[in-house]
Amino acid sequence: MPIVTRRAAIIGIAALASQSAVPARGADDVLPSWRDGPAKQAIVRFVQETTDTSSATFVPPAERIATFDQDGTLWVEQPMYSQVVYCLDRVPAVVKAKPALATSEPFKTVLSGNRAAIAKLPMDDLFKILAATLTGMSVEEFRSQARAWLDTARDPHWKRPYTELTYQPMIELLKYLRASGYKTYIVTGGGQDFVRVYAEQVYGIPPEQVVGTAGGTRYGYDKSGRPVLTKEPKLLLNDDNAGKPEGIHLMIGRRPRAAFGNSTGDRQMLEYTKAGDGARLAMLVLHDDAKREYAYGPALGLPGTKVGSFTQALHDEAMKQGWVVVSMKNDWRRIFAFEE
Amino acid sequence: MPIVTRRAAIIGIAALASQSAVPARGADDVLPSWRDGPAKQAIVRFVQETTDTSSATFVPPAERIATFDQDGTLWVEQPMYSQVVYCLDRVPAVVKAKPALATSEPFKTVLSGNRAAIAKLPMDDLFKILAATLTGMSVEEFRSQARAWLDTARDPHWKRPYTELTYQPMIELLKYLRASGYKTYIVTGGGQDFVRVYAEQVYGIPPEQVVGTAGGTRYGYDKSGRPVLTKEPKLLLNDDNAGKPEGIHLMIGRRPRAAFGNSTGDRQMLEYTKAGDGARLAMLVLHDDAKREYAYGPALGLPGTKVGSFTQALHDEAMKQGWVVVSMKNDWRRIFAFEE
Repeated sequence: MPIVTRRAAIIGIAALASQSAVPARGADDVLPSWRDGPAKQAIVRFVQETTDTSSATFVPPAERIATFDQDGTLWVEQPMYSQVVYCLDRVPAVVKAKPALATSEPFKTVLSGNRAAIAKLPMDDLFKILAATLTGMSVEEFRSQARAWLDTARDPHWKRPYTELTYQPMIELLKYLRASGYKTYIVTGGGQDFVRVYAEQVYGIPPEQVVGTAGGTRYGYDKSGRPVLTKEPKLLLNDDNAGKPEGIHLMIGRRPRAAFGNSTGDRQMLEYTKAGDGARLAMLVLHDDAKREYAYGPALGLPGTKVGSFTQALHDEAMKQGWVVVSMKNDWRRIFAFEE
Repeated sequence: MPIVTRRAAIIGIAALASQSAVPARGADDVLPSWRDGPAKQAIVRFVQETTDTSSATFVPPAERIATFDQDGTLWVEQPMYSQVVYCLDRVPAVVKAKPALATSEPFKTVLSGNRAAIAKLPMDDLFKILAATLTGMSVEEFRSQARAWLDTARDPHWKRPYTELTYQPMIELLKYLRASGYKTYIVTGGGQDFVRVYAEQVYGIPPEQVVGTAGGTRYGYDKSGRPVLTKEPKLLLNDDNAGKPEGIHLMIGRRPRAAFGNSTGDRQMLEYTKAGDGARLAMLVLHDDAKREYAYGPALGLPGTKVGSFTQALHDEAMKQGWVVVSMKNDWRRIFAFEE
């Protein structure tokens, strides 16, 4: 099948958009950080055609499910996933509790602080760090450890808490969808328990609406006979790529009406969403704004990346399937709430 | 520690109940199928003390989670779990699609219709039947197969659809809790996908609030390139006993405020619920009404059972921990909606 070019797709979307009401503007604009353009129009049109009871593609409230990737879609993922930073930052505390680890790899390298060496750690070593910092404790202990880190850690580039590095246009979109009767879910390759610690406060998304990579827990009792759930190094769901629709089925049991992502790991979630009948919205955020955030692809000639790759093949599929590509540079008036 | 007797516990509950408002009666009674007594009073008191903003044990709406076992708690589980009947009933269709199975066990025995022989099938054979009837198809195919069965199958005792064999007092309780801001979940040892087929229509509980024994799915594409989720014979969560609190953490991520069960498989869920701080409600339905439903325990000298056993040890723990035991015979004015 011929691949529809980006330009043609945008023209097509704009033509469709002209048939429906334009988004609210000025003081009534619920998406003020979005510039008027095909992306914003596609969102508003989708909401209108799924919530207007006279629409042929009306969706009953119970079926209004919208799923959002997190890293790179709702908040910054460069130069390293926040959760990986968390795990590395936890290593000293883990070693303090088990001093024998100090002289064994990969803990020795992490403790050295040598960033180049840490970046080169093989995947097996990274898993050892994840297991040591994300498992072995009760779910409550993990929650308080993660919360303490979030309260104090600062992103080295912006010198701000990681929880401030959320994209203001996406926060507005979450609120707009919820105000339109959509239940908003996070569907992330990141750790489900980690994201649950802050998702309610940061995104207004409660723990039960966070689907993520999940490990098992083990039910037992502490010394005083109190029930305890202990986090186990046992992978139940690898919530990335094909794992995203699989995780959606496991945790939600309904096909989303709208899905939002930014990288190849989101491809299957968007395919699955769009394969349903009626009106469906699939969107990919393209990081093409080196000045205000980061620029990486490698689609459209943008620099490649090890984190959150948006390949040309993904871009081609987006154009072919009618997914909307959001240009951070062009479609977003403001990226962060803390901007002037 | 000394074991508190049932009588003493009931007196204790009644004493506490007298300190708070009595449940609504007459036309305003939201629980008309519950007789006035300690169980009903415990429910109403729990709701009052967790929803009254002036209460020391007030619970914010977002944290109001109530979990319900299904088989034996929300609907009839005797003489055999409905889902097992479904699986046995599906065998002819499975054999029709794969005729070679007709001469191999356990399919041969199931096709024979010999109930005594079927009841004696070992667990390994039962798993073969479950795998053959619950996996291998797309999630949509499974849904339509299960729905077709639910529309036509009849319980042999009541000659009614299985979905009518729900307990009216529990339906009222679900509605009362939801009207009080509680999110109601099913947490069942039964198959998550099976229960999701009817939970919304029967209990008002949407698919995303059904936690059950769950198998994996595999994301792929059909011949026309359309995404398909295929049900796999791979167990992700055995949602019974310790698996219930583990499943609650996986799927909900919050400790319930109230939990309802009827058998030893619910013990850990109730323990976990009650171990939280503030006001918590834990209830067990005791099947002690041979006339209107079934009588089985073997607690309190009731006959033993292979399905949904409520042991004396469970009863002892209930008394010790302050769980409320609901006597179907004494606490429920009406059991089924279809009763005169």
